[in-house]
Amino acid sequence: MRVLILNGPNLNRLGKREPDAYGTFTLAELEHELEQFAFDHGIELTCSQSNHEGEIIDWLQQAERQDLDGVVLNAGAYTHTSIAIRDAIASINVPVIEVHISNVYKREDFRHHSFIAPVAEGQITGFGKDVYFLGLHALLLRNQRG
Amino acid sequence: MRVLILNGPNLNRLGKREPDAYGTFTLAELEHELEQFAFDHGIELTCSQSNHEGEIIDWLQQAERQDLDGVVLNAGAYTHTSIAIRDAIASINVPVIEVHISNVYKREDFRHHSFIAPVAEGQITGFGKDVYFLGLHALLLRNQRG
Amino acid sequence: MRVLILNGPNLNRLGKREPDAYGTFTLAELEHELEQFAFDHGIELTCSQSNHEGEIIDWLQQAERQDLDGVVLNAGAYTHTSIAIRDAIASINVPVIEVHISNVYKREDFRHHSFIAPVAEGQITGFGKDVYFLGLHALLLRNQRG
Amino acid sequence: MRVLILNGPNLNRLGKREPDAYGTFTLAELEHELEQFAFDHGIELTCSQSNHEGEIIDWLQQAERQDLDGVVLNAGAYTHTSIAIRDAIASINVPVIEVHISNVYKREDFRHHSFIAPVAEGQITGFGKDVYFLGLHALLLRNQRG
Amino acid sequence: MRVLILNGPNLNRLGKREPDAYGTFTLAELEHELEQFAFDHGIELTCSQSNHEGEIIDWLQQAERQDLDGVVLNAGAYTHTSIAIRDAIASINVPVIEVHISNVYKREDFRHHSFIAPVAEGQITGFGKDVYFLGLHALLLRNQRG
Amino acid sequence: MRVLILNGPNLNRLGKREPDAYGTFTLAELEHELEQFAFDHGIELTCSQSNHEGEIIDWLQQAERQDLDGVVLNAGAYTHTSIAIRDAIASINVPVIEVHISNVYKREDFRHHSFIAPVAEGQITGFGKDVYFLGLHALLLRNQRG
Amino acid sequence: MRVLILNGPNLNRLGKREPDAYGTFTLAELEHELEQFAFDHGIELTCSQSNHEGEIIDWLQQAERQDLDGVVLNAGAYTHTSIAIRDAIASINVPVIEVHISNVYKREDFRHHSFIAPVAEGQITGFGKDVYFLGLHALLLRNQRG
Amino acid sequence: MRVLILNGPNLNRLGKREPDAYGTFTLAELEHELEQFAFDHGIELTCSQSNHEGEIIDWLQQAERQDLDGVVLNAGAYTHTSIAIRDAIASINVPVIEVHISNVYKREDFRHHSFIAPVAEGQITGFGKDVYFLGLHALLLRNQRG
Amino acid sequence: MRVLILNGPNLNRLGKREPDAYGTFTLAELEHELEQFAFDHGIELTCSQSNHEGEIIDWLQQAERQDLDGVVLNAGAYTHTSIAIRDAIASINVPVIEVHISNVYKREDFRHHSFIAPVAEGQITGFGKDVYFLGLHALLLRNQRG
Amino acid sequence: MRVLILNGPNLNRLGKREPDAYGTFTLAELEHELEQFAFDHGIELTCSQSNHEGEIIDWLQQAERQDLDGVVLNAGAYTHTSIAIRDAIASINVPVIEVHISNVYKREDFRHHSFIAPVAEGQITGFGKDVYFLGLHALLLRNQRG
Amino acid sequence: MRVLILNGPNLNRLGKREPDAYGTFTLAELEHELEQFAFDHGIELTCSQSNHEGEIIDWLQQAERQDLDGVVLNAGAYTHTSIAIRDAIASINVPVIEVHISNVYKREDFRHHSFIAPVAEGQITGFGKDVYFLGLHALLLRNQRG
Amino acid sequence: MRVLILNGPNLNRLGKREPDAYGTFTLAELEHELEQFAFDHGIELTCSQSNHEGEIIDWLQQAERQDLDGVVLNAGAYTHTSIAIRDAIASINVPVIEVHISNVYKREDFRHHSFIAPVAEGQITGFGKDVYFLGLHALLLRNQRG
Repeated sequence: MRVLILNGPNLNRLGKREPDAYGTFTLAELEHELEQFAFDHGIELTCSQSNHEGEIIDWLQQAERQDLDGVVLNAGAYTHTSIAIRDAIASINVPVIEVHISNVYKREDFRHHSFIAPVAEGQITGFGKDVYFLGLHALLLRNQRG
Repeated sequence: MRVLILNGPNLNRLGKREPDAYGTFTLAELEHELEQFAFDHGIELTCSQSNHEGEIIDWLQQAERQDLDGVVLNAGAYTHTSIAIRDAIASINVPVIEVHISNVYKREDFRHHSFIAPVAEGQITGFGKDVYFLGLHALLLRNQRG
Repeated sequence: MRVLILNGPNLNRLGKREPDAYGTFTLAELEHELEQFAFDHGIELTCSQSNHEGEIIDWLQQAERQDLDGVVLNAGAYTHTSIAIRDAIASINVPVIEVHISNVYKREDFRHHSFIAPVAEGQITGFGKDVYFLGLHALLLRNQRG
Repeated sequence: MRVLILNGPNLNRLGKREPDAYGTFTLAELEHELEQFAFDHGIELTCSQSNHEGEIIDWLQQAERQDLDGVVLNAGAYTHTSIAIRDAIASINVPVIEVHISNVYKREDFRHHSFIAPVAEGQITGFGKDVYFLGLHALLLRNQRG
Repeated sequence: MRVLILNGPNLNRLGKREPDAYGTFTLAELEHELEQFAFDHGIELTCSQSNHEGEIIDWLQQAERQDLDGVVLNAGAYTHTSIAIRDAIASINVPVIEVHISNVYKREDFRHHSFIAPVAEGQITGFGKDVYFLGLHALLLRNQRG
Repeated sequence: MRVLILNGPNLNRLGKREPDAYGTFTLAELEHELEQFAFDHGIELTCSQSNHEGEIIDWLQQAERQDLDGVVLNAGAYTHTSIAIRDAIASINVPVIEVHISNVYKREDFRHHSFIAPVAEGQITGFGKDVYFLGLHALLLRNQRG
Repeated sequence: MRVLILNGPNLNRLGKREPDAYGTFTLAELEHELEQFAFDHGIELTCSQSNHEGEIIDWLQQAERQDLDGVVLNAGAYTHTSIAIRDAIASINVPVIEVHISNVYKREDFRHHSFIAPVAEGQITGFGKDVYFLGLHALLLRNQRG
Repeated sequence: MRVLILNGPNLNRLGKREPDAYGTFTLAELEHELEQFAFDHGIELTCSQSNHEGEIIDWLQQAERQDLDGVVLNAGAYTHTSIAIRDAIASINVPVIEVHISNVYKREDFRHHSFIAPVAEGQITGFGKDVYFLGLHALLLRNQRG
Repeated sequence: MRVLILNGPNLNRLGKREPDAYGTFTLAELEHELEQFAFDHGIELTCSQSNHEGEIIDWLQQAERQDLDGVVLNAGAYTHTSIAIRDAIASINVPVIEVHISNVYKREDFRHHSFIAPVAEGQITGFGKDVYFLGLHALLLRNQRG
Repeated sequence: MRVLILNGPNLNRLGKREPDAYGTFTLAELEHELEQFAFDHGIELTCSQSNHEGEIIDWLQQAERQDLDGVVLNAGAYTHTSIAIRDAIASINVPVIEVHISNVYKREDFRHHSFIAPVAEGQITGFGKDVYFLGLHALLLRNQRG
Repeated sequence: MRVLILNGPNLNRLGKREPDAYGTFTLAELEHELEQFAFDHGIELTCSQSNHEGEIIDWLQQAERQDLDGVVLNAGAYTHTSIAIRDAIASINVPVIEVHISNVYKREDFRHHSFIAPVAEGQITGFGKDVYFLGLHALLLRNQRG
Repeated sequence: MRVLILNGPNLNRLGKREPDAYGTFTLAELEHELEQFAFDHGIELTCSQSNHEGEIIDWLQQAERQDLDGVVLNAGAYTHTSIAIRDAIASINVPVIEVHISNVYKREDFRHHSFIAPVAEGQITGFGKDVYFLGLHALLLRNQRG
């Protein structure tokens, strides 16, 4: 099983950015923990992060060309503004799991709407960094059920 | 770890109700599968279902009196209309995980808003019956991290 | 032909409640008249009323288990607020006719929207108590055309 | 009892127009069936159709000058846009029954609002061609009760 | 000075239509009174009424071809729905005075907006039949000031 | 003078529920204090609480059958969602005083609208538990003035 | 016949203020012209102007105490924001004619709504300074018809 | 205990203004009754009324400089439009009780929103002149509880 | 290939109507140029114009009875208000190309929405009179590709 | 260079009013500091404050009669509600700089809209008392560039 | 004549992406066909595609520096979200033709609004790949008329 | 003091782009003038411009890593659409001053809302190129006050 963890804008600042909302762990620490989990469950994992909307689209398209088994995507602020990322997800056959670290429904109104949700496999929101692990669990369960 | 699986209105009709949206398994089958999972992970599980908003509130309040470790709640249609259930969740100390079987963001507009989400621990949406298992995983992870 | 007449909240107060809007007949008188009509047209009729949203859902689900040929439903105020009743109607195979005694379009804005209408067989509004008889006529015509 | 069946724009294309929504019968066939029903129930029936908003207003005004006992009106698309037809109905003493063949509440948002409903005697929606017969039933019941 | 009094839909029913809102005078009586006023003030007056939006547009275009000095227009319900009449007014050089017999701002919300107002010379609302005389006064004053 | 104090959903959790918003007293303590006040002012008092919308409607209807002199109603979250309770109040002749412990206008937007207010005798909001006593004062003053 | 011409905020700057919208005449010149017209038609005229909302209310209340026969009111910007002036008009028996020099419907959206219109006798908008003369004509016609 | 009763625009016309909504008593009569009540309960009372928004702000600021124990404020129409009065209340330490004679929720939409409510101690609406007495009761209860 | 050029309200005033928005050519000149183009490309062309919504519907229905290969429709102001024309287009099998001379998106908000667009083959907007020629090109291309 | 610093409602309570939002300095202290700055930069400064909307309008009009070189205006709450102050600014030739002490975009929604901004020279928001000094800098720079 | 065909996000996936909406041809095939058409009509053609909003802006600015005669732009999802692309178009003198392959008005609401349309030369929507050829025709016609 | 001047999309076209709104100076000229001002006031200045949202985010994050004392940011069109830039500002400790050359409140509605304003230190709008100098003044004043 080959999976991409794809993080969007400002998630490279985890640990430094609003720790009350996002926790005190850094992106490097998170990716390390995810790689261990992946190793334990036989998942081949790649981790990427970009602040550029276009690059996220490029990588989603690449995920299909590489025939990945799933993407766990935290699109950050682009979740709420990017129809282009939505279209990229809709245009590929790789299942995309949408995740959010913070409970976006407790925050500003403009974070309550996701352009991505209707084209994602499903959405996991608000459990801190656990959302990435739950995202991988979701792909594992999906795989099991075939 | 003691957990309540709480299903709201019309979820007793799983398997018979719009199988395209909700799948072909029955509530009894789902609860049986969940009990096996719970047994495997050392969780003491109770499963309840009600079509009555007031009864769901009663049971959430009871969950606190029984000092449960978590509730996995699929409030069904009440998700979108019940401030009273929201207030019940806000008034107890038991963590509540909100789950939805179908991807509500692909459906009618009035299913896109949840009164419960801002007071829930987190939300898991759209992976079919896997959302219940992911909900239990979320409680297990929460427990692990303390 | 077996049919359920199902009345929602405050319709037990017909005759006493805002007679300008709802007329001076009581629910008992109306049900009596409907039973005579049913008898004349070979319909086996049951009449129920409840102020409880959950109970209305329970009865709609029961209507399917009893394999009824139709429900004439005046959901009263729940028409405008209950997605749960809507889902119950959508989840059963029994045709449901939505009726309203008063012309709801002459009244407050919040009475102009029905959550039930899109999943009902059809809607009959504003002819006073005649809406129940027209509802039965609609089921008879439906039966005739097969 | 003298009644006018008045059909609005594009209803002359029944049978040819979106048969999924409107059925496969033609306007001529429908009018023929209605005339038989009228004959059976002692109703003197006139049937008209126009694509012109102004002509529908002219005919509604004429209905009063002819002292008709009722109009069964399917105003088609003008239902949702014509305040002028609404005013015509409000300005005459002949009771007008609003009917719609399709369940408009299952269709585009702009078909959910009727300018006519608040000034109509009542509204019957979504039973296919039966709405015309139910409209005549409604006038017969109205007549009976005096 | 040559002027057209142009009345829209249902105004041929003045005196019979909602007398509380529109008064008890008939259109014929009103036009007679206006002709006397016109004669006294040296105005050559034509009076027309139509229930047809298209015909009102035709006449407004004709007003320009006839090089009239003004139109006093009560577009009735089309005031609130007709962009086509608005465009007709905008496309001619004849000044158009918009008038309304009733105080539309005391009535339903959908009567508060006029598509015509921004392209009219001015608007006179709510003085009963006096609005037509005030409309003629406005044209006379306009003429005086050059 | 016979009065019903009727509390809605989650008010049985007073003292335990968000004490910053609702205070530290329990429902039992509040009811005790109210009974003393009632005794001192010659009021025969009954106190009820329910989490069930239908039950609140049942009790309001019962209040009329028992010919009470007033109801002090804190409908909790149902204030903002229940047209059915509104209709129950409108259908009885017993004056209903709407009260809220917290200042709802300082809280979430969805708590700013009350379906009950337009059919209540009056509304008292935001003085903590004093709103119940002020509600009884309002009934006493009403009684005095006849 | 005794009439008050009451001008609101910034109308003391007529002639100096946005001459394209308001014309090149000053308030003094306008009032002089109005006094001549009043003299010619046997009207006893008073003219006032204030930039203060409260003062306009004071003067409207005074108009009733002085038992005037009418007020021609250009409330300027307060037209769009002052419910207090609306209430003042509603609380007196003197007929108030609302006038606007410019065609407010050609300007910013926030100038399209008038709080005053529903309680005014009628509204005259957009004929330049002629609106004041038409306002007096309206009072004269009203007087004539009794 | 020293208290200010502060009435806003048009309340000097009580008794003369829309008696159906506001009752037949005059402001002088009301103030007299309030002074008797105050005397009986050991309150030192001042009564003021103004049609000027700025003056109401001046007096609220003065209330703090005079170190009053409370203000009972009926801001009339300014309730719905004045952020400046809201800011004045928020900037002083004297508790302000918002009162309304009529049930504003039965009236026009623009009277349903109060800019003052979120910064007031609490709100009492719709009991006729009793709201002033209940406002004083609220201050007395507040005082008792310390 | 047989094609109808169908122009709606006020387009008979091309050249005279707002030349900045619509150009200085007349409808006759435009139709002449179109006929030459049609002749050159082997298209049998008919040109019609009407100010009447009903007549446009009649002609669209006729286009199907005549089995035309396409309609190039400039519905003018009816584009934004006519659901009836939309329904006529949806009810026929002839492809309809929607065109607009001016760039409607640069103009008033109410010109930004087209009821026709979702049922048209496609839309061409804002190139002046070229839109008619591009509309014919679109039909030619469509024909070529089969 | 002659400049007016004009402060609106409740700004006389600086230092006492919500110090978290507005700082701990008093209006007197601020005006003293501004006068020193003015003296240093050769500006002749006047400072005024009023709680009355009408008075602010009066002073803006006076600023033109006195031929001032600029106004630095903090209109406080009137920023969000006063079209009359907007019109006053638009009617004078003196450049007006709009300033706000707090960052209004971090506060309630109703503080996000300014009626004044579109007619002001420019807007400076959210730097605490520095906004007044930056306002004077803006006038100095404007002067320099001519 | 030198023209740029500029395609936005996800259009590199033509043929693979939602073929029902976008057709089965690839971008390479389309560009090839366009080059042939260009060659036949004496147009010097460049074709570009990018998923990056910033790059599209860079290229539009470059189009002006290269003094091109036109751009045919399919901005894809950025059509609905990018004010920055709109500003780029507005800041250059090269005419930009907006095209869309699918009929966006048949799709989700958020695809109905274009930020680009008001600054484009014109818009061509919904004819499949023909929109690009029609776009070139539009530029040819524009060139012809000078 | 080390400061970054950061300009967003299309600001590299200053002088060529809509000179009425943005002035006739080029970006190079502006940056030169700013460097002189910076030199005079002991500020170490860097100037950057990008059309790419992601690059602006990268640079804001870099500003923190470089421990700058302030950023003067003109985010151009991204001001109104980019939650990602907002999040970048919120995630760094460097104070960001938001500036706009034109008075955005005089322009299209979609330019009236800034996603950046609530997380910026303050906002300066509408003084032409002076906003950059005022932005530097604001940082100098901030520095002085410590």
